[in-house]
Amino acid sequence: MSTQPPDRPRTPLLDLVRLPSDLKRLGDGQLRQLADELRAETISAVSVTGGHLGAGLGVVELTVALHAVFDAPRDKIVWDVGHQCYPHKILTGRRNRIRTLRTEGGLSGFTKRSESLFDPFGAAHSSTSISAALGFACAADLGGSPGDAVAVIGDGSMSAGMAYEAMNNAGHLKKRLFVILNDNEMSIAPPVGAMSAYLSRLYAGAPFQELKSAAKGMVSLLPEPFQEGARRAKELLKAATVGGTLFEELGFSYVGPIDGHDLDQLLPVLRTAHARATGPMLIHVLTKKGKGYAPAEAARDRGHATGKFDVLTGVQAKSTPNAPAYTKVFAQSLLREAEEDARIVAVTAAMPDGTGLDLFASRFPRRCFDVGIAEQHAVTFSAALAAGGMRPFCAVYSTFLQRGYDQVVHDVAIQRLPVRFAIDRAGLVGADGATHAGAFDVAFLANLPGFVVMAAADEADLVHMVATAAAHDDGPIAFRYPRGEGVGVEMPARGIPLAIGRGRVICEGARVALLSFGTRLGEVQKAAEALAARGVSCTVADARFAKPLDRDLILQLARHHEALITVEEGAVGGFGSHVAQLLAEAGVFDHGLKYRSMVLPDIFIDQASPEAMYRVAGMEAAQIEERVLAVLGVAVVGMRA
Amino acid sequence: MSTQPPDRPRTPLLDLVRLPSDLKRLGDGQLRQLADELRAETISAVSVTGGHLGAGLGVVELTVALHAVFDAPRDKIVWDVGHQCYPHKILTGRRNRIRTLRTEGGLSGFTKRSESLFDPFGAAHSSTSISAALGFACAADLGGSPGDAVAVIGDGSMSAGMAYEAMNNAGHLKKRLFVILNDNEMSIAPPVGAMSAYLSRLYAGAPFQELKSAAKGMVSLLPEPFQEGARRAKELLKAATVGGTLFEELGFSYVGPIDGHDLDQLLPVLRTAHARATGPMLIHVLTKKGKGYAPAEAARDRGHATGKFDVLTGVQAKSTPNAPAYTKVFAQSLLREAEEDARIVAVTAAMPDGTGLDLFASRFPRRCFDVGIAEQHAVTFSAALAAGGMRPFCAVYSTFLQRGYDQVVHDVAIQRLPVRFAIDRAGLVGADGATHAGAFDVAFLANLPGFVVMAAADEADLVHMVATAAAHDDGPIAFRYPRGEGVGVEMPARGIPLAIGRGRVICEGARVALLSFGTRLGEVQKAAEALAARGVSCTVADARFAKPLDRDLILQLARHHEALITVEEGAVGGFGSHVAQLLAEAGVFDHGLKYRSMVLPDIFIDQASPEAMYRVAGMEAAQIEERVLAVLGVAVVGMRA
Repeated sequence: MSTQPPDRPRTPLLDLVRLPSDLKRLGDGQLRQLADELRAETISAVSVTGGHLGAGLGVVELTVALHAVFDAPRDKIVWDVGHQCYPHKILTGRRNRIRTLRTEGGLSGFTKRSESLFDPFGAAHSSTSISAALGFACAADLGGSPGDAVAVIGDGSMSAGMAYEAMNNAGHLKKRLFVILNDNEMSIAPPVGAMSAYLSRLYAGAPFQELKSAAKGMVSLLPEPFQEGARRAKELLKAATVGGTLFEELGFSYVGPIDGHDLDQLLPVLRTAHARATGPMLIHVLTKKGKGYAPAEAARDRGHATGKFDVLTGVQAKSTPNAPAYTKVFAQSLLREAEEDARIVAVTAAMPDGTGLDLFASRFPRRCFDVGIAEQHAVTFSAALAAGGMRPFCAVYSTFLQRGYDQVVHDVAIQRLPVRFAIDRAGLVGADGATHAGAFDVAFLANLPGFVVMAAADEADLVHMVATAAAHDDGPIAFRYPRGEGVGVEMPARGIPLAIGRGRVICEGARVALLSFGTRLGEVQKAAEALAARGVSCTVADARFAKPLDRDLILQLARHHEALITVEEGAVGGFGSHVAQLLAEAGVFDHGLKYRSMVLPDIFIDQASPEAMYRVAGMEAAQIEERVLAVLGVAVVGMRA
Repeated sequence: MSTQPPDRPRTPLLDLVRLPSDLKRLGDGQLRQLADELRAETISAVSVTGGHLGAGLGVVELTVALHAVFDAPRDKIVWDVGHQCYPHKILTGRRNRIRTLRTEGGLSGFTKRSESLFDPFGAAHSSTSISAALGFACAADLGGSPGDAVAVIGDGSMSAGMAYEAMNNAGHLKKRLFVILNDNEMSIAPPVGAMSAYLSRLYAGAPFQELKSAAKGMVSLLPEPFQEGARRAKELLKAATVGGTLFEELGFSYVGPIDGHDLDQLLPVLRTAHARATGPMLIHVLTKKGKGYAPAEAARDRGHATGKFDVLTGVQAKSTPNAPAYTKVFAQSLLREAEEDARIVAVTAAMPDGTGLDLFASRFPRRCFDVGIAEQHAVTFSAALAAGGMRPFCAVYSTFLQRGYDQVVHDVAIQRLPVRFAIDRAGLVGADGATHAGAFDVAFLANLPGFVVMAAADEADLVHMVATAAAHDDGPIAFRYPRGEGVGVEMPARGIPLAIGRGRVICEGARVALLSFGTRLGEVQKAAEALAARGVSCTVADARFAKPLDRDLILQLARHHEALITVEEGAVGGFGSHVAQLLAEAGVFDHGLKYRSMVLPDIFIDQASPEAMYRVAGMEAAQIEERVLAVLGVAVVGMRA
C-alpha cells in the first residue's frame, strides 16, 4: 500500500487520511500514532522545501485534536499567521502537494482561501484570527455560513493590539467562539511585553492566582472525570483552574493551561468545550516550538524558518552569498552611526533578527526597543522618542508598516517629527508570496507632506542612506531596500549623507532615459546595454528620492530624450505617479513625451523566487528592453528567440 | 482689574494665572475656586466658538490638579485625542486666543506641538497617548528631554489596540510613567466592549475584586492620611484598593478609582504618586462628561461636540440646511437596501452617530456591530462577515480608515472579499483641521488589486453607490463622500446599481475636458460656466470611479480636447495618478496633451471652513477657472478684480 520513496517516513495511518472526516473513524490511541506520523511527514516535507518548521511541529497534536473534535470545513478553524498550518494542510487534502510548499505554482506557506475550503480565512500577518473567528460566529448567527468558529493564536500574536480589540469585542458580544491560545513562549524572537510575563506567571502556577475559574462554574466544563481515571481528572482539574483572570475580565471563559502535546488532555478538553460552550472561550495550550525534532528544539529560534535540510542531522543546505544582505548592511551601518551619536535609538516590532537589529540590541541594549508585534505603538513610540530629542530608527518590513499607517500620518508626518523608517523587504519577496510583498509603501508615504522617501539601488547606497537619515532632523525620512543580497558593489568605509532630493546619472545616452528608483537599477542597466547593442542609446539614472523629486534631473531627462521611462518595485501611485505629476505640472506633456511608468502590475503575485515574481511583473531586463523598443515603435520580432 | 466684557464670567483667580507655574502659588482651597472659574471660562468660550465641550468640562479639576502637581512643559502631559484640552489651553498661555478655537488662523481644537510648548505631543485621533508618554519616558532616560511623562486617556480610547500595545510595552519596560485613566463611562457613543464592562465592575465595587493592590504595597503610595483627616483617609484607602487586576497583570501599579471632580482626592493622590512612583502607574479617575453645565450633563452625548450656543439656556444656534447631509443620505439608503436584503450588516468603530449607523442600529440591532474604537478589528471582522456569507458595510471616516490599512490590504483585498467601505468625511473637513482630513484614501485604496473605488459627486449619486456596493459581490468596493450637506439635487426613489467603471458626461464642450472625481463637481461646473462666458468651451465629466477607470471615456476626452484636467478631493497618488498612468500607457502623451491633475497640495492645511480650506488648496471654482486659462495660455490679467 505504501508507495512512498524510501527516504519518506513510514506513515500507515496517515496514508488512510484524505480528509479530516477520516479522523472520526480513529480511536484516541490511533490519533496518537497519527500525530507521530504527521510530525514525521511534516519534517520530511520541510526538509525538501524549507519553510516555517518550528511552528508546525509545535501544533501537530493540536491540529489532530482540532480536526478530530471539530467538523471542518463546516466549522471554521482560523490559524493565526498561518505559518503553522503545514500539518493542517497535510490532513486537509493537500498532502500530495505538500512538497511544493512556498514554491512557484505550489502550496502557499500560509493558509489561503483560494487554495482550500479548509482555509476559511487566509493569514500571513499576525493577530487577525480572533477578529476573523468572531466574524464567522456572527455571520453564522445571522443566517450566514453555519458552524463553529475556532481561532488558534500564538502568545506572540497576543501582543498586537488588534487581538485585544477582537477579544474586547468578543467578550462584549458573548457569542460562542473558541480561541486556542497556543502558548509556546516564543513568537519569533524571545517574547516581550507584559502579556508575555503574565502568561509565564499563569503556567508557573504562581499562588497569586485565585482559583476564580472554579468558583465561576468552569468545573462544569471539565471532561467527565471518571472516563479518564482519577489521576487524570485531578491533573486536569488542577490545570484548568490555575488562572486566566485577565481573559476572564475580558469576558472569556478560561480553561488551562493544558499540555498541548498530550492528546489525553487536548481531546477531552476540546470535546467538553465543544459540547458545552455557550459564549467565548479561551483554551490555553502550552506547546513547544519545534517539538519532536531535536535540531529544531535545540535551535535558538526553535526552527522558526529554515532552508532545505538533511532530516537526520538537521544541517541546512547553505548557498554562498556573493554580496552582503541588505538587512545586514543596514544593521552594520546603523551601528556605526550609533557609535558616534548617542541620540540614535532603534525600534523593532518583534523582528530583531529579521531587521538585523539583534546586532544593535547586543551592542546597545538600552537604546534598542523591541516592542513586540505592535507596529502601531512602534511608530508612535518612535515619534515621541524623536519629540524627546532622540534620533529613532524604526525598522520594519514594508508590508508590516501598513499596520502603523495612521500613526505614520497622524503622529509622525503631521507633527513633522524626524522618525527614520528603515523599510526592509521592499518589493517582491519570494517564497512568502503576496501577503509579504512590499508593494505599497512608496505610494502611501510619498504623498505625505514633509516626508523624505528614498530607495537604495545597491548596498553601498544603503550605507549612505542610513547616514542621510541619521543626519536628517528636519522631518520624517524613509529608505527602502529589498530582501536578499546586494549586488556586490564596492562598499564605502562609511556613509556620507546624500543631498536631499538629488538623483544621480549612471550613464549618459541619447535617445531614451531610463529612470530607476530602487534595486531594479541592475536590470535597467542590463536592459540599457542590450539596447545599446541594438543601436538604441539610453541614459540610465537612479532617482534615489521619490520625495522630494530631483526636479532638475527629471526635466533634463525629459528635455533631452525621446522617451522617459520610470522603473520601480512598487505599485502605481508611487514614484512614477509623482514623476508624472511633476511632468504634467511643468507642461512637459503639452508638447509630447513618450512617458511610461513601469510599476508592479495590478494583481497579487503568488509566491515564487523573487526573479520569477519580477518576471510575472514584467520587470526583468529583457522585459524592460522589450518595453523600450515597443515605446519607440521598433519591431521586436524574434527578439526573445 | 477685570476688563472682560459684561457677558464674560467673573474670574478673579484665573486672571492671575498666565502659565501653570502660577498655580504653584495657590493654596488647595484657591485651586478649587480656580477650577470653578476655569469651568465658567470654558463654557463661555465654547458658547462663542462651538466645539468639543463635554470632554473639557469633565477634566477641569484634573487639568488644574495636573498642572498644580506636575511641572509642564518640563513634564510632558499628553492628552489623548486632545479634544478635552480647552481648559489646558486656558491655563497654558492661550487664554487670550481661546475664543478663536477651531477657526481659521485660531487655536486648534486639539493639542498641537506647533501651537505651544505645553503641547508636547499633538493628538486628534484616539489612543496614542500611552505610546507617546512611554516614548518621552524612554527619551528622558537616555539623556533626551528630561521630565516626567503623563498620559491622560479616556475609557473609550482604551478599546483601541494601540493603547493595549503601549500598556503591554510599558509594563515590560517598567519606566516611571503616569497613565491617568479618565473614566467617564462615555467615549462618544455609549461605551462598548468587555473593557468597558470591566471598568464598570471596578467602580461598582463588586466584591469579586480582591484587595490585591493593598497586598502589593499600594498602601505605601497613598497620601499621608493624617494630613486630610481620618474620614478622608478612610475613603481614599477604600477607593484606592478596589481593584485594577487587569492593569496590574499588565505590569502597572493601580490606584483608584477616585473622584475626578474632587480636588481633595485628586491633589493628594497625584502628589503622592508623583513623589513615590518608580514604574508605570495607572491612576483611575472617575469623571462626568459635561460636568458642571446642566445642558451638557442632560444631553445624550453629554455635550460631546456642540455648535455655538446660549450660555444660559444651552440652546444651540442652528443653521437651516438646504439639502440633506451626505451622512444621512448614506444611512437612509443603506437602511432601504437592508430592508430587502437580510445579508446586509453594518460595522462601525465607535461612531454610530457620526456615520449615521445609529439609524441602522435601532432598526436592525442584531445586524449592526459597534466594535468600539478598533478600526483594525472592524475591518478584519467585516472581512470574515463577508467570508461567512454576509454583505458587510464597514462605515468609517477616511482618516480613521488609515488605522485599518493593513487589514484592508491583507484581509480584504488579497482575499478579494466583498467588504463595502462607506468612507465618510472624504476630503477637507473644516474645523477639525489637518488631522481629520480625508486626503489619502483614494491613493491607498485604488492601487489595491481587485478594489472598486468610487466617489459620490452629489447626494443622489451616493444613493446609487450604496446600491452599487450592495449588489457587488465580486470583491471589495469603497465609496467616499464628504462631510456636510449635499447640493440639493433631486433624490431618486431608490438606488440603482451603477455600471462598474463607467463615468458620466455632465455637459459637452469643445476645447477643454474637466474630469471630476467626487464633490468638486459643483465647483467644476461653476468654473465651466464662467469659462464658457469667456468663450472657452468645456466638457464636464464625472468619473464616478477611480478604479476601475472608465478607459473609453477618458481616452475620448483626451482625443477630442486640447486639455484634460482632473479634479479630486485627495492627495497625489490617487485618481489623477491613475488617469495619468492610463494616458501614458495608451501613448496619449507621446503626441502631446495638456494634462493636469488638480489634487490637494503638499501641505497639511490648518482648520478653517471647508470652503476656506479648499481655497488654500486652490480648488474653488474661480481657481479652477484660472487654472484652465493658465493651461491654455490665456492671459488672466484682472480676472479676479
